[in-house]
Amino acid sequence: MKKLSLVITFFSIVLMWSCKEKADSTTTETEDKPLPEFNDVEKIEPPFWWTGFKNKSLQLLVKHPDIGKFIPEVDSGDVSLVKFHKAESPNYLFLDLEIAEGAKPNKFNIIFRENDSIGLVQTYELKAREKSAEDYVGFNSSDAIYLITPDRFANANPDNDEVEGLLQQGIDRTDGYKRHGGDIQGITEHLDYIDEMGFTAVWPCPILINDMPSGSYHGYAMTDFYKVDPRFGTLNEYKNLANQLHNRDMKLIMDQVANHCGLEHWWMKDLPFKDWVNYQEHYEQNKDNWDWKTTKMSNHRRTTNQDPYASEADYEGMSKGWFVPSMPDLNQKNPFMAKYIIQNSIWWVEVLGLDGIRQDTYPYPDKDFMSDWAGAIMTEYPNFSIVGEEWSLNPLLIAYWQEGHENTDGYDSNLTSSMDFAMQAKLVEALNEGEAWNSGLVKIYEALANDFAYTAPEKIMAFPDNHDMSRIFTQLKGNATNTKMALSYLLMLPRIPQIYYGTEILMDDFDKPGDHGLIRTDFPGGWQGDTVNAFTGEGLTEAQKNMQYFLKKVLNYRKSSEAIHRGKTKHFAPFQGTYFLYRSNSDETVVHIMNKNDEPIEIDLKYHEEMGLKGKTLKNIITGETLTWDDSIKLNEKGSYIYSTKL
Amino acid sequence: MKKLSLVITFFSIVLMWSCKEKADSTTTETEDKPLPEFNDVEKIEPPFWWTGFKNKSLQLLVKHPDIGKFIPEVDSGDVSLVKFHKAESPNYLFLDLEIAEGAKPNKFNIIFRENDSIGLVQTYELKAREKSAEDYVGFNSSDAIYLITPDRFANANPDNDEVEGLLQQGIDRTDGYKRHGGDIQGITEHLDYIDEMGFTAVWPCPILINDMPSGSYHGYAMTDFYKVDPRFGTLNEYKNLANQLHNRDMKLIMDQVANHCGLEHWWMKDLPFKDWVNYQEHYEQNKDNWDWKTTKMSNHRRTTNQDPYASEADYEGMSKGWFVPSMPDLNQKNPFMAKYIIQNSIWWVEVLGLDGIRQDTYPYPDKDFMSDWAGAIMTEYPNFSIVGEEWSLNPLLIAYWQEGHENTDGYDSNLTSSMDFAMQAKLVEALNEGEAWNSGLVKIYEALANDFAYTAPEKIMAFPDNHDMSRIFTQLKGNATNTKMALSYLLMLPRIPQIYYGTEILMDDFDKPGDHGLIRTDFPGGWQGDTVNAFTGEGLTEAQKNMQYFLKKVLNYRKSSEAIHRGKTKHFAPFQGTYFLYRSNSDETVVHIMNKNDEPIEIDLKYHEEMGLKGKTLKNIITGETLTWDDSIKLNEKGSYIYSTKL
Repeated sequence: MKKLSLVITFFSIVLMWSCKEKADSTTTETEDKPLPEFNDVEKIEPPFWWTGFKNKSLQLLVKHPDIGKFIPEVDSGDVSLVKFHKAESPNYLFLDLEIAEGAKPNKFNIIFRENDSIGLVQTYELKAREKSAEDYVGFNSSDAIYLITPDRFANANPDNDEVEGLLQQGIDRTDGYKRHGGDIQGITEHLDYIDEMGFTAVWPCPILINDMPSGSYHGYAMTDFYKVDPRFGTLNEYKNLANQLHNRDMKLIMDQVANHCGLEHWWMKDLPFKDWVNYQEHYEQNKDNWDWKTTKMSNHRRTTNQDPYASEADYEGMSKGWFVPSMPDLNQKNPFMAKYIIQNSIWWVEVLGLDGIRQDTYPYPDKDFMSDWAGAIMTEYPNFSIVGEEWSLNPLLIAYWQEGHENTDGYDSNLTSSMDFAMQAKLVEALNEGEAWNSGLVKIYEALANDFAYTAPEKIMAFPDNHDMSRIFTQLKGNATNTKMALSYLLMLPRIPQIYYGTEILMDDFDKPGDHGLIRTDFPGGWQGDTVNAFTGEGLTEAQKNMQYFLKKVLNYRKSSEAIHRGKTKHFAPFQGTYFLYRSNSDETVVHIMNKNDEPIEIDLKYHEEMGLKGKTLKNIITGETLTWDDSIKLNEKGSYIYSTKL
Repeated sequence: MKKLSLVITFFSIVLMWSCKEKADSTTTETEDKPLPEFNDVEKIEPPFWWTGFKNKSLQLLVKHPDIGKFIPEVDSGDVSLVKFHKAESPNYLFLDLEIAEGAKPNKFNIIFRENDSIGLVQTYELKAREKSAEDYVGFNSSDAIYLITPDRFANANPDNDEVEGLLQQGIDRTDGYKRHGGDIQGITEHLDYIDEMGFTAVWPCPILINDMPSGSYHGYAMTDFYKVDPRFGTLNEYKNLANQLHNRDMKLIMDQVANHCGLEHWWMKDLPFKDWVNYQEHYEQNKDNWDWKTTKMSNHRRTTNQDPYASEADYEGMSKGWFVPSMPDLNQKNPFMAKYIIQNSIWWVEVLGLDGIRQDTYPYPDKDFMSDWAGAIMTEYPNFSIVGEEWSLNPLLIAYWQEGHENTDGYDSNLTSSMDFAMQAKLVEALNEGEAWNSGLVKIYEALANDFAYTAPEKIMAFPDNHDMSRIFTQLKGNATNTKMALSYLLMLPRIPQIYYGTEILMDDFDKPGDHGLIRTDFPGGWQGDTVNAFTGEGLTEAQKNMQYFLKKVLNYRKSSEAIHRGKTKHFAPFQGTYFLYRSNSDETVVHIMNKNDEPIEIDLKYHEEMGLKGKTLKNIITGETLTWDDSIKLNEKGSYIYSTKL
């Protein structure tokens, strides 16, 4: 087989050369005729690239049996092979290419020789970029992000529910940990709903292939960083989702994972280098006798990233240990791995025309690498956004991870956005607790005061819930009024709000609070035959409809409110069970009131004189009713009140 | 009376002038004869001053009936009157003096004229400074501070228990809120005990007069900022305490209050300016119908100091409101008040030769003033220390208040030390909780990790308890082993440790936890006739003696351990109910182990290999036993273990 292939290749290359010579001499005649392409190697990654990046370097991973014995050559006037690297496995080569300034989009061949004879030929393409670098405008505080677990949102294409050859087969909607059949097309077909609700951006949990024997539905155990999971759809469907969103002026955020891959990743059977992933040998030796210490699972002590006193052993245990036994820890200190991850991220930004990245498990990879990674992306896309996930209630860490923060260790993450888990937790406390000097609403009042420590609070992502925690309605013990207060408060903050799908219809996990499978419940109406359809409202309870209506009103108001997007913020310390937050610019003031009193209460507004609203007419953005702002305001019932000077 | 006084004054001044002329012509004959002194004015503050400060300006407050109608003159070659200011009350003048560079210590007269005739004469003294500015070396991480409530520590002089003419009379040791008779001399006479325990500094709660009708014992409602409370003793006794401490190479920290005074402060009956204190008019109008809003008590919303979104109303309510109804809020925005407070602080540093200041209720006064205040002191005494009290569990605020922190609002406090209430609270949690992934010892492991956010963690004051909270033994539910763990941990940290008197003998407030009167219980043995004497050990229970012995051992070890004072810190994430903290320098490593296991346990030390201790001999600093550091260590019982390589 091998010999035959080489012979064929040889003839091919001769043919190609003759074509090329011909092309050189008679350009006009041949320019529309595509050159023949060669695909001799098993795998080349990134599978294609673009001209016109600031960074002219490109490192290709080439995988093929025994490719290590070949000497590569690049046949292109625009692209030069600067260097090539053998790996520890004989089946890999890494090629450092340099793309000339002003290089035109083109295809060229990479020739692999052994002892002067041509072994393999691979055609490689440099495409033209479709958008200018500046046009990749990331998510920001004018957005409201809808977070979706794709397997659980809508199943538009039952044909892709089962795909032959994959390790996990079958769908079972009765099991929270099995696949349910949701797909990319399911999201695309419901963009009307998402758009009309008032969301401006979609963040689907990972869509890349997780060819894992179990638990593949969540997407965080990728087995190929360049491949869409066929059960979610195709690359073209993914591109189509991006295009459909962009046609509506909406944004697409991709969920990426730089820390780990799935244990069934294709390279796990033949690692280029022993240190391509961390602690593989420990895992191999001890996997049958699983114990976190011997198999080197992460100790998850993430404060070792900042702690000036952390032991090296603990830092390594966190950073190099595996996140869970099914997810090998990628070694970003291996420079080939580092380049691989960076290029992979850029490839997806460019392929999909992305508007942002959400990076999973942010504190776990090597943090210097993560700064390089984010820096590399932001260099190519200066208006882009990246949000990193660190599940910490400690504002010091939220501040630490945001770019430009003056960290005592000099670290700069290059990350535009960190995540406000602290505010999430305080919001739950604030609403579940009774009001007292030091409990209740004061918790969020003081949490928001912490913004003084952030470089750019308005670029921090805030959320009532996500795919890893009970929905806010569950966290608030099934209290819909408190849920409304939580949601509207978050939507008024100088933040980038994100809401998990289904929260708008009071989805819950009371049966088993915090159970991941249950949290990621199917969105009703997403499956043929669903008796309840949240997209149309059919079968929803009054309470569900009411919440959906409320959130739709707030989100749609927020969509065009510059005062909320970028206005000044002012708030008053909670008083008599109420908490007033004002957002304002020169054109508009929005007043958000949280009222915990069940009985009607009149609140003195003379104390709020500095807001300059006295005598002005304001409209309740939910009910449409207007009132004249006076020395006091009467609040008849518990809940959120949102008034605006925009009538 | 007045006329007679003026006539006498006139003759005096003539006499003085003639003396002065004589002196000028025949210096050698008269230089040893003191000039006659004049004390015509009711009050002049500061009562005297010094030459040789960097700041050559001095502002005198002069109080005397109708002094506003006089024109002051200064009769000195070295001191000039730059300007004088009338107050709103006719009974005050403020004099801006400038002391010439190189001025010699001297006395000079201030003459107050009305229509060219001399009205009053006041002699004022500029003393020589006793120590150089650099010799005022503040407290630091080599110290261990003993905090004392003077009324409750020891009554050495029963003669001063009751002082005629003061508003609160009588002592009653059965009432936690009445005076108990403790005094300065009581502290001085027990310096042997404090010293031998291993403390290196004493911080007594305020010693200045609180001539208040009730609750005067605690000292925080000062009624004269230049006067020692006669029930505590005299200025000379206070100076003697300082000298006795200095003779032992120990330090004295003064507890000062810039935020408020006592309602019975002498100036409250005749304020120089309407805005000398904040909201006095509201208090006057509403005091009989007390309500926090109308009487303008502080809203205590201290986050308004940092909160970028705080309303002006809330900030003012916090900063200008009264701390409690018996403590008027000083207005540091009045420039005369501002100078008054700064000079008062410097006066006390210089009079007592202080080693540090503890500033009460730090976030309540105007924060720009507080920066000026601390800056003025640190300019005069570059090696001094000041610690400010902000009772906040939020490390962001602890960081904010320490000098040099990169605050987003540009604020620099000039304060060397803030207080670690966060660590105190986490320590209690860590020991009261059971061990689990996210509870128990990990709370202090992660709290210490927050040090990355501090400019100088080793200059932050840490403490198990103080005069405003239950003693640590109470907070730890009466568990002496946990109390030992808490104390020894704090003493090993890169911090300035402070311990409240009586904590060493397990004093508690179980009868009424948190009750201030009870917290400030009399130290046994401080009163004649006490059946228990903690100074001698007589009558102490075994548990008390054991704690006293333990703390004495740790403190005395700490006293000479450079590794603890200034060494590197390293700690390992809690594991199997144990938590290891290492402090080390080139000469010494100290290992602090907290072990929560009741049953014997063997801990793997191979994981701690980076500490380089294997094969070394270490000594248990409590028991004196030695061991060879090996691949594991056996811990036989629950508690603190402290090992050192210093044998």
